[in-house]
Amino acid sequence: GPRMTFGPNDEGALQLDYKGQFQMTLRDNGSGDNNEDTTMNFNFRRNRLALMGKYGDMMSIYVQTEYTDDPNVTPLDVARENQGSNFQLLDAVVRFKIDNAFRVNVGKFKYNLSRENLEACEMPLTLDRSLFIRVPFTTTRDTGVAVWGNLFNDMFQYRLDAMEGRKALSGDATPASKFRYSARAHVTLLDPENDYGYKGTYLGKKKVATFGAAYQFEPDVAYGNTVLKTDKKDYKAWTFDGFVEYPVEGMGTFTASGAYEKIDLDHAYLGDNPDFNVVGINGEKNGYYVKAGYMLPNIPLQLFVRHEDWKFANLNGIYNQRIFWTGGGMNYYLRDQNLKLTFEANSTGFRYGSGTSADETEDFMTYVTQLQVIF
Amino acid sequence: GPRMTFGPNDEGALQLDYKGQFQMTLRDNGSGDNNEDTTMNFNFRRNRLALMGKYGDMMSIYVQTEYTDDPNVTPLDVARENQGSNFQLLDAVVRFKIDNAFRVNVGKFKYNLSRENLEACEMPLTLDRSLFIRVPFTTTRDTGVAVWGNLFNDMFQYRLDAMEGRKALSGDATPASKFRYSARAHVTLLDPENDYGYKGTYLGKKKVATFGAAYQFEPDVAYGNTVLKTDKKDYKAWTFDGFVEYPVEGMGTFTASGAYEKIDLDHAYLGDNPDFNVVGINGEKNGYYVKAGYMLPNIPLQLFVRHEDWKFANLNGIYNQRIFWTGGGMNYYLRDQNLKLTFEANSTGFRYGSGTSADETEDFMTYVTQLQVIF
Amino acid sequence: GPRMTFGPNDEGALQLDYKGQFQMTLRDNGSGDNNEDTTMNFNFRRNRLALMGKYGDMMSIYVQTEYTDDPNVTPLDVARENQGSNFQLLDAVVRFKIDNAFRVNVGKFKYNLSRENLEACEMPLTLDRSLFIRVPFTTTRDTGVAVWGNLFNDMFQYRLDAMEGRKALSGDATPASKFRYSARAHVTLLDPENDYGYKGTYLGKKKVATFGAAYQFEPDVAYGNTVLKTDKKDYKAWTFDGFVEYPVEGMGTFTASGAYEKIDLDHAYLGDNPDFNVVGINGEKNGYYVKAGYMLPNIPLQLFVRHEDWKFANLNGIYNQRIFWTGGGMNYYLRDQNLKLTFEANSTGFRYGSGTSADETEDFMTYVTQLQVIF
Repeated sequence: GPRMTFGPNDEGALQLDYKGQFQMTLRDNGSGDNNEDTTMNFNFRRNRLALMGKYGDMMSIYVQTEYTDDPNVTPLDVARENQGSNFQLLDAVVRFKIDNAFRVNVGKFKYNLSRENLEACEMPLTLDRSLFIRVPFTTTRDTGVAVWGNLFNDMFQYRLDAMEGRKALSGDATPASKFRYSARAHVTLLDPENDYGYKGTYLGKKKVATFGAAYQFEPDVAYGNTVLKTDKKDYKAWTFDGFVEYPVEGMGTFTASGAYEKIDLDHAYLGDNPDFNVVGINGEKNGYYVKAGYMLPNIPLQLFVRHEDWKFANLNGIYNQRIFWTGGGMNYYLRDQNLKLTFEANSTGFRYGSGTSADETEDFMTYVTQLQVIF
Repeated sequence: GPRMTFGPNDEGALQLDYKGQFQMTLRDNGSGDNNEDTTMNFNFRRNRLALMGKYGDMMSIYVQTEYTDDPNVTPLDVARENQGSNFQLLDAVVRFKIDNAFRVNVGKFKYNLSRENLEACEMPLTLDRSLFIRVPFTTTRDTGVAVWGNLFNDMFQYRLDAMEGRKALSGDATPASKFRYSARAHVTLLDPENDYGYKGTYLGKKKVATFGAAYQFEPDVAYGNTVLKTDKKDYKAWTFDGFVEYPVEGMGTFTASGAYEKIDLDHAYLGDNPDFNVVGINGEKNGYYVKAGYMLPNIPLQLFVRHEDWKFANLNGIYNQRIFWTGGGMNYYLRDQNLKLTFEANSTGFRYGSGTSADETEDFMTYVTQLQVIF
Repeated sequence: GPRMTFGPNDEGALQLDYKGQFQMTLRDNGSGDNNEDTTMNFNFRRNRLALMGKYGDMMSIYVQTEYTDDPNVTPLDVARENQGSNFQLLDAVVRFKIDNAFRVNVGKFKYNLSRENLEACEMPLTLDRSLFIRVPFTTTRDTGVAVWGNLFNDMFQYRLDAMEGRKALSGDATPASKFRYSARAHVTLLDPENDYGYKGTYLGKKKVATFGAAYQFEPDVAYGNTVLKTDKKDYKAWTFDGFVEYPVEGMGTFTASGAYEKIDLDHAYLGDNPDFNVVGINGEKNGYYVKAGYMLPNIPLQLFVRHEDWKFANLNGIYNQRIFWTGGGMNYYLRDQNLKLTFEANSTGFRYGSGTSADETEDFMTYVTQLQVIF
């Protein structure tokens, strides 16, 4: 979109962008008789308006809306009723750059845990980030304050934040209304990754090797017993991750990345009447992803594969359920990330259960064709 | 609104508009004792922000928000409780013009059935489009892909689309999650209508005579028996329409238009426990509208009348109910469609029922004064 | 934000702004055991995108969105469950200036009752406006038409409006769907306040002394007996207010302001089954605020205090409850109102009740640190 300047000496600038990811999804179950028929769906995965601004050298803002419209086809099933529409301010952050080694973010923005959640939504390597990497009691963003910076000639980056975490609520719902704290650091060799946001691929324009780790915690986040309002549980999470991308003259660009993440809710799911949110896809769990890509040297085509393995404390009533997720596909960059066509096929498998739709443990395939536009 | 350019050679352009239709409505029933007292209401009929962009000659986008705030005064009654507010992305479409005869739309936009639904919302002939022309299981827009083009020196236009139709849902709600398909064609004599959107009037700037027809279908859209999950029903619809506008030197501009539309849900309403959505104002029905306008030659005043006759499979519990709707009024164009004042009086009549508010079949009058601003 | 021009002679202009108020709140109750533990919260108080436009000298528009995200920490308690997110068009108004003495506003905008509600949201003297000044059945804005103007060399201003008030609803909910009418006038000495919006402080750039009063009424707004649908009650409100700001060379700027407001619902709360909305924080009540500020002469620091005393017909089940609210703090203007840091400590006290969290009458302290950005 256009970039407009303002202020007495044009020290202000504001750019307005539209960003859409439109998908056609086919899944070989989820609908019809016993939910074992094919599901066909057109929908937006992302549908956004973004304002990026700066004022002078020290201050910038990033404000972005997101619109969802009946996201009925979910990672593990198809909904029974329309999920409704939602228009939200996904990001609204003011960033102050006091120094390359000392920057401050204030507002609503991505917290500092997993690398993949911090990778730009429109610049993943595969179709999308992991479906299983989200933390409990918030989404991909949170509200609060972060301090971060690059040290040692940009080879080292630190990040510290205090965020809302679980939203403040009365004692009827949660044992306390406290903040959530994160710490993350990385070492980045070759060309540095020195921004707040990472990318899933640099399309061969950078040589990158980055290794990071993060820890997050929030005390007294949930009751193990919501009826008696006892058995206070803490939330802790940690992750480590690696990312390497290397373009080779005449051969193409090779990318490999992986991460492990553990979400610990202090075994709250074993309580007598645990909080509903300590289990399920965003509850207590641990797992990893690995992904790899290869971009051709002369045509803007990138092939990719991804594998994930996750263990959930309790998923749809099955304790210690495991999910194996494997996918592969390709990105065709018509105008870099501004106009991109992606195809991905992926399979979702369940370790335990009947293997049928009766307890939602039937293995299934999903095929997604996506048009991405950044305008 | 302003038009901003961007890109290395200014091949990109983006325009930002606000569009509002603010209405004062008086209706001679709906409130108070037995709901037979007058209802007075101020509200927006449309309240939108629009981004129109292009990049080079082949690609353009159209992104538009819509905001509604307690639309309590509905076509047939006044609500018992506040309907709430809703902010949505009404349109979000990327358009590719490969050739005048081959264009592709991808995203959320108007599907190809009735002409009047495809007429620009801010350029109707009468106060608004028909209140009874909507199709089941979606709104005025849908998500998907359309292919269209103009042939034979723009005298013929074809349109084909595959859209979401009823949103993908599990077998608990609907017999299948399939796409909805439409085909539409028109013949346009004199000055051609060769855009995707039609207009309700060209304000005397064009001589137009266009005749079109369309067909739409979606298999397995609803259960005739939602309890047993049996009796799968298809959706089919067809329409034909005509539009003529002719400015006569010194005499003014004459406009006449009409359409017939049939919404067929395979008599699902006769099933034992039919899906709730197969009846009512957007369920199985057929009917027509005719409308005519006359714009004065020297002052920007346009007089209009409209008549409609619709038969509903089941409306508020009355089978084969018919509605007669007749209205008339005027548009005063202060700055063409950018600043327009409209007044319309209309009457809504019911064929069957007690003719009282007890079964919502009391005939009523509605008087609307509207200020339209496109900024 | 940037200001863009358009139109054949650049008679159009449109400015796009982001406005955020991000708060860190600590309150010494509301959470945990018996809701008597400290509540910690990060959230936006305001989070807005605004479009301000004009076309020629006579017509302008103001369109503004507001986004709220789980506003769980309310004036008097902390919610038991997440309050959800809401994106809305807060303002959408077209303004016509026929003459300085005759202007017309059409759309959604602030109605004409209390001065403080009409003070710009980003330019208060204290942290925010009164928490107790809202009227029943609408928010800080309403939809309708206002006529206003300045007379006698801007020393006198009148305002008249007809607004929606309680939204149109059927007789099941309210005795009638009528409009709400307001009249407001002020006398402004020294430098005139001649805009539609007031400010809470002019930061020493203006010498102001303004005294105003207003009256508002809406007939048949609620049932005193919602079961029998009888006992129709009217809404009436009146207020008077004063504002003085005076910069003294070398000494700094002194500000003092106060208002009294009475919300009268004809004692509907004494009915047998009164409408739910006639009581509580926005129901029948009366009270006042006084506030004062002092801005230092050479550094952009402003100290402020505020005191309020309100009597509620029925608050959380306690008849004739009174609230004493006292606060103080400071604004530090880094770039006037465009970048401002505010700290406020305030205490909320209850006259009647057990003084414990059991009936929500425990006195409490709230500490808010706020970063305001207008970009």
